[in-house]
Amino acid sequence: MIKKGLLYAQSGGPTSVINSSACGVIRQAQQEGLDVYVALNGIDGIFNETIVDISKEDDEQITKLCGTPASAFGSCRTKLPDYKVDDSKYFELLKVFKKLNIRYFIYNGGNDSMNTCAKVAEFMKNNDYECYVMGVPKTIDNDLLLTDHCPGFGSAAKYIATTCYEIALDTAVYAKGRVTVVEVMGRDAGWLTASSALANENGAGPDLIYLPERAFDLDKFIERCKEVYEKKKTCLVAVSEGIRDKDGVYIAEYAKSSEKDAFNNVQLGGVGTYLADVITKRTGIKTRAIELSLMQRCAAHLCSKTDVEEAFEAGRYAVKSAVAGESGKMISFKRVSSAPYKIEYVCAPLDDIAKFTQSVPDEFIGVDGASVTNAFIEYAKPLIQGEVSLEYKNGMPVYAKLKKELVKF
Amino acid sequence: MIKKGLLYAQSGGPTSVINSSACGVIRQAQQEGLDVYVALNGIDGIFNETIVDISKEDDEQITKLCGTPASAFGSCRTKLPDYKVDDSKYFELLKVFKKLNIRYFIYNGGNDSMNTCAKVAEFMKNNDYECYVMGVPKTIDNDLLLTDHCPGFGSAAKYIATTCYEIALDTAVYAKGRVTVVEVMGRDAGWLTASSALANENGAGPDLIYLPERAFDLDKFIERCKEVYEKKKTCLVAVSEGIRDKDGVYIAEYAKSSEKDAFNNVQLGGVGTYLADVITKRTGIKTRAIELSLMQRCAAHLCSKTDVEEAFEAGRYAVKSAVAGESGKMISFKRVSSAPYKIEYVCAPLDDIAKFTQSVPDEFIGVDGASVTNAFIEYAKPLIQGEVSLEYKNGMPVYAKLKKELVKF
Repeated sequence: MIKKGLLYAQSGGPTSVINSSACGVIRQAQQEGLDVYVALNGIDGIFNETIVDISKEDDEQITKLCGTPASAFGSCRTKLPDYKVDDSKYFELLKVFKKLNIRYFIYNGGNDSMNTCAKVAEFMKNNDYECYVMGVPKTIDNDLLLTDHCPGFGSAAKYIATTCYEIALDTAVYAKGRVTVVEVMGRDAGWLTASSALANENGAGPDLIYLPERAFDLDKFIERCKEVYEKKKTCLVAVSEGIRDKDGVYIAEYAKSSEKDAFNNVQLGGVGTYLADVITKRTGIKTRAIELSLMQRCAAHLCSKTDVEEAFEAGRYAVKSAVAGESGKMISFKRVSSAPYKIEYVCAPLDDIAKFTQSVPDEFIGVDGASVTNAFIEYAKPLIQGEVSLEYKNGMPVYAKLKKELVKF
Repeated sequence: MIKKGLLYAQSGGPTSVINSSACGVIRQAQQEGLDVYVALNGIDGIFNETIVDISKEDDEQITKLCGTPASAFGSCRTKLPDYKVDDSKYFELLKVFKKLNIRYFIYNGGNDSMNTCAKVAEFMKNNDYECYVMGVPKTIDNDLLLTDHCPGFGSAAKYIATTCYEIALDTAVYAKGRVTVVEVMGRDAGWLTASSALANENGAGPDLIYLPERAFDLDKFIERCKEVYEKKKTCLVAVSEGIRDKDGVYIAEYAKSSEKDAFNNVQLGGVGTYLADVITKRTGIKTRAIELSLMQRCAAHLCSKTDVEEAFEAGRYAVKSAVAGESGKMISFKRVSSAPYKIEYVCAPLDDIAKFTQSVPDEFIGVDGASVTNAFIEYAKPLIQGEVSLEYKNGMPVYAKLKKELVKF
């Protein structure tokens, strides 16, 4: 009897722990006695027939995937059409699945990837090809529905909190300081920006925190910065890249539109740079803008151990569930308690997940609209606990190096 | 007999290890049986009589200064006038020194601080007040003369190399990527930008590296980026904030001047943002600019153990040397060998140090003007070795917290 195959792929923006999920998937699949394949660059790797045979990899490097940042197998942003409208791509998938006897397909990504999962699961079922399809969530943004939190968020939150702590110490050294505006990722939801507040747990962090869940008022913002600065002679602000005014216009667009005439629509700098500039113009206070940029999603040297372990387990549970006959579902985290912290891994229906984003709820946002509540801290604190001990060589962390030997078709 | 006092202060921009030097100074001074005082906000703390009595601090927190970022005792950018022109400030110093019987003064900073040291040493000598003045160097820029390298550089280099490694992994995940321009500190010297090349030791790092030591040619730069991108479909560039064209004009000024008309002289974004914008305009390739900003000087969670230990020892040697009768000198590092790495701590004359900056020498820069040589890697690699094991609480590193109880005058 020909062995059953499991195919895994990574999609969407990388995180510090998506490879930990890859490791979980591979380890569990090996335990289940499956042939394990990974498509390069997400679902595109299936169409391109660039599929890695995991049995050819060094076992040590597979273990090292835990804690290795970025998407070790490449990523894509490809969206599949509705197969009822155009099923040609789906038949391409099916052809490859049949060639390798793929009976389990695990897709690891965010909203769009979960949507892909749902469509593939449905197509395979309707075409009588036995294949169990499971989604493993991944997003630093933490904005997926139906899960307590997402793998990737904890490590990003740990990086943001630690960095804000270090920046708060650095910016407080002069008798006369500045207003420092730290721009954090999260276009639609403020989870990452909110996590900067964890820095205050250690005694230094942002004085003001602005999430996209609250309409941003430029005048009030400047007033608050001025107040803090006059009192402390320094002021640290964390703003989400996605803050909008009461009419829903992105503040980042303000900057864009000021530059339109001079620069042919090209945007220089983001919302942090724009706000720092406005503060200086209106108050004369010196400012600095800092964008945490890609570091917040790839600084794996500062991973949350909790996040790494949960990402690994999410991968394992996806395989276990698929083997047990689940399909068209996503592994999600159900919080049992915060103190002591305990979660359960469950299967959530995929259909609903892709449609909306999970915003930061009202009870997590301070009444002044520029802070978070203790309830948020209680929610987020367990997710950044623990440090991963990495191997260092040449003074730098050593991350997984794969051979990526392709299956010959 | 009244005990002799030692006064220490921190000046200039903070680093990840200036507090390690503080710890070294304090520990050696305690061993020598001296009363230990620290002025808050550098030399300003002497004028303001805001001076901390170290005997009142928890010993555990003093130990924790090793590896704590920023200037724990505050900083300043105050420059003293020539005392032959105006000695009023110097007599203020003398008054405080006499009150506390300060016979040793240790000043920790960069170029300007070493200049302050030299002036104070000379004034005290000429006014027959027995006081031994020593400088402890500190600058992430690594641009001080008469020392193999500066405390602070190794940790910044380790952060830059590790971050460039992680960014290189993150930006290589899509089949069609971007040109990513990472802007690194160092206005006059390219040491920090050069250290990004250490990332390539682990297999992924910048493809192109531009230092202020070489005239920057915008057309050639774009050509090189295009070449790399066409081959790899991704391209990582590290540029120094201080790159200049053949006429000595800062490339950052190009951005400024384009914005002058529209923005009333205000600059949005730095040289990285400007270059990313120009690449997109001229080639159509997608780009991203990343500024390592304050993180490169305050990310103490990623300190180089070598740097922390050397900074500590520099502090200790400054006190030892002062007690042995040295004055008007700076502790400097003399490299004995690179493999195995070994340095000696010596005293260098202060007068010459403040006048010039130490550029990256020709033998460290690649002939293409967009890379570094193996000689640079051999020089820099020992400086980023070793990791500091920090205490973590609430998922974040715990840094020193001081009481800063002031001496009552």
